[in-house]
Amino acid sequence: MKNNNYCVIMAGGIGSRFWPFSRNSRPKQFLDFFGTGKSLLQMTVDRFRPLVPIEHILIVTNVIYKDLILEQIPDMNGSQVLCEPARRNTAPCIAYAIAHIKGLAYQEVYGRHLQEGEQVDWDDEKLNANIVVAPSDHLILQEDEFRRVIGEGLDFVSKNDTLLTLGMKPTRPETGYGYIQMMPGESSLRKVKTFTEKPNADLAKVFVESGEFLWNSGIFLWNLRTIRHEFLSNLPEIAQAFARGEWCMGTEKEEDFIQQMFPTCPNISIDYGVMEKAKSVHVMMADFGWSDLGTWGSLYDLSEKDAEQNVTLKCNAAYYDSKGNIVALPEGHLAVLRGMQDMIVAESDGVLLICPKSEEQQIRQFVSDAETNYGGKFN
Amino acid sequence: MKNNNYCVIMAGGIGSRFWPFSRNSRPKQFLDFFGTGKSLLQMTVDRFRPLVPIEHILIVTNVIYKDLILEQIPDMNGSQVLCEPARRNTAPCIAYAIAHIKGLAYQEVYGRHLQEGEQVDWDDEKLNANIVVAPSDHLILQEDEFRRVIGEGLDFVSKNDTLLTLGMKPTRPETGYGYIQMMPGESSLRKVKTFTEKPNADLAKVFVESGEFLWNSGIFLWNLRTIRHEFLSNLPEIAQAFARGEWCMGTEKEEDFIQQMFPTCPNISIDYGVMEKAKSVHVMMADFGWSDLGTWGSLYDLSEKDAEQNVTLKCNAAYYDSKGNIVALPEGHLAVLRGMQDMIVAESDGVLLICPKSEEQQIRQFVSDAETNYGGKFN
Repeated sequence: MKNNNYCVIMAGGIGSRFWPFSRNSRPKQFLDFFGTGKSLLQMTVDRFRPLVPIEHILIVTNVIYKDLILEQIPDMNGSQVLCEPARRNTAPCIAYAIAHIKGLAYQEVYGRHLQEGEQVDWDDEKLNANIVVAPSDHLILQEDEFRRVIGEGLDFVSKNDTLLTLGMKPTRPETGYGYIQMMPGESSLRKVKTFTEKPNADLAKVFVESGEFLWNSGIFLWNLRTIRHEFLSNLPEIAQAFARGEWCMGTEKEEDFIQQMFPTCPNISIDYGVMEKAKSVHVMMADFGWSDLGTWGSLYDLSEKDAEQNVTLKCNAAYYDSKGNIVALPEGHLAVLRGMQDMIVAESDGVLLICPKSEEQQIRQFVSDAETNYGGKFN
Repeated sequence: MKNNNYCVIMAGGIGSRFWPFSRNSRPKQFLDFFGTGKSLLQMTVDRFRPLVPIEHILIVTNVIYKDLILEQIPDMNGSQVLCEPARRNTAPCIAYAIAHIKGLAYQEVYGRHLQEGEQVDWDDEKLNANIVVAPSDHLILQEDEFRRVIGEGLDFVSKNDTLLTLGMKPTRPETGYGYIQMMPGESSLRKVKTFTEKPNADLAKVFVESGEFLWNSGIFLWNLRTIRHEFLSNLPEIAQAFARGEWCMGTEKEEDFIQQMFPTCPNISIDYGVMEKAKSVHVMMADFGWSDLGTWGSLYDLSEKDAEQNVTLKCNAAYYDSKGNIVALPEGHLAVLRGMQDMIVAESDGVLLICPKSEEQQIRQFVSDAETNYGGKFN
């Protein structure tokens, strides 16, 4: 039977929070944080391979990362990397991916591309597809459980005209994540009651203790017809702009169309533009050792620690009177720390950052100052 | 008139206190600490050029640094680098240099080398020479004043059979230096009363307040006949060992002789073995912005500071809520520090050290541990 599952991996982020490890030329998703020999992007792609044929995996990114992606995923071809000519947040990015998938599905089913100006019938059941959308730069520790959950989710959205999001069972009152409140019930798959912004510490505690709130993972599942419908209802401007170019998806005209149209899209997230407003949204509770690796602190929490609670990534380190640090130097280097507590020590490509873990939200400022003072040399 | 001034630069030190900046393969004297484009050794040689013809400047070092020296001082020839086959402290090193200078002087005056077994007449006035001995790894800020003092000192020892040492006018109660007590008087050149070891903080304060004590700079001046005489009186074992090979100095036999004999010398310093026991020792008070650069702390003290008392050597740096640090990264690199006070941050060739300035005496231990754990890879 034809596999009509598709996967969209979002890899356009800049990830300045991991500076100087992540750089404009090599953001977080392209880095091998744990020294496993695979970048976060490579791990993400590999995680989907058993569920989705490689030719159905698409990566949406900024054009400047296309070569890097094809280098890291050599069995992917250039047409699978959808290039955004401008940064417009996740809604336009996903609208582009669904238009492209529609074009691919049409070609697979009817053996030809659409003609210029030809309309596609979105209710044609043969053209439907199930799509999982996932960030490229998250960490997932239990890959088997991840695959089981995604498989179940794809099956659910193939049979139900609803949007589905994965909610992670919270393990601590994290203030760095958005939360999803479920409707009351017993099932691990329920309707969503509300999406919330990142809470303060007190509220996060209430959320976690209530048992009704899950972390918003940014992993979405839906079928093509349903997401298309929700775009038309909630972001009609974006939906109609892409509708005008549907016919050229998968053809040599696609790039020109995107170059012209994409920058005219409003800058809006899929959460705010679609998920929070959609008619029917479900959430599936999941627990597979997930982290968005959004901060050095979360990387620290996830990493193996020595007896003094120090984390050493990739390099060698000697700690004297030093506790609770995270140290990441280039492979093969040696760090010697004396009298350092709860610090980030990270060096990459000519930049050394030393900063308390508790102050890491300032890293964006450091990056911005470095840009101002050194004209992008260290960004 | 023939210039019979000679200069002996001692460049055999390992300088592990500046690890990881200094390494076994490139100790402190070979480093350009201040980013001036010249190593401490190059600055030392240049400082003597106006006083001593380049062919009268000798460098005594370990054989493993010979190539590096000839690379750094390209107008010096290989015979001017005297190689110690083993580390035996400063007395044997200086005994070797004076024997070698005697050979050079003989050849200049009589146009030939000595024959095997031939005795040299040390009282032959034509063969006398004035010698200044100096470490290769000190910093001197006021070079004009330095030259004036050395010129005066060479003149003094050419006319007086006494050993002369330079005593630096102390500017603070430093506990990292030895002190020299002068005999009472008004002159800036007086007889030495005593040499002292490094004092504790209380004693250092008394020394400095008394006005009678000077820092022992390790810069010595004397004439050849006088130092030879003092070696015979105070370290006869070493003096006689070199006397047996005097005839071969400056010939192709010199290296074999030194290979055989040098390692049999006792390990003893010129201060302890000769200066403290010599019949007549004078000290000349000097003040030319001197530091032995023995520690990161002394380097910090001497370096230009920003408004927050941070010192940045060679690299770029951005300081946030950080005061009193000394940061030395490879040229062109950027350091970003947040919440760091009075720390050493030094990186070189794959090793990053972060240590409070107040704990820098532990660096030797770090180096030793790195040797044990990584088999010399980082030493």
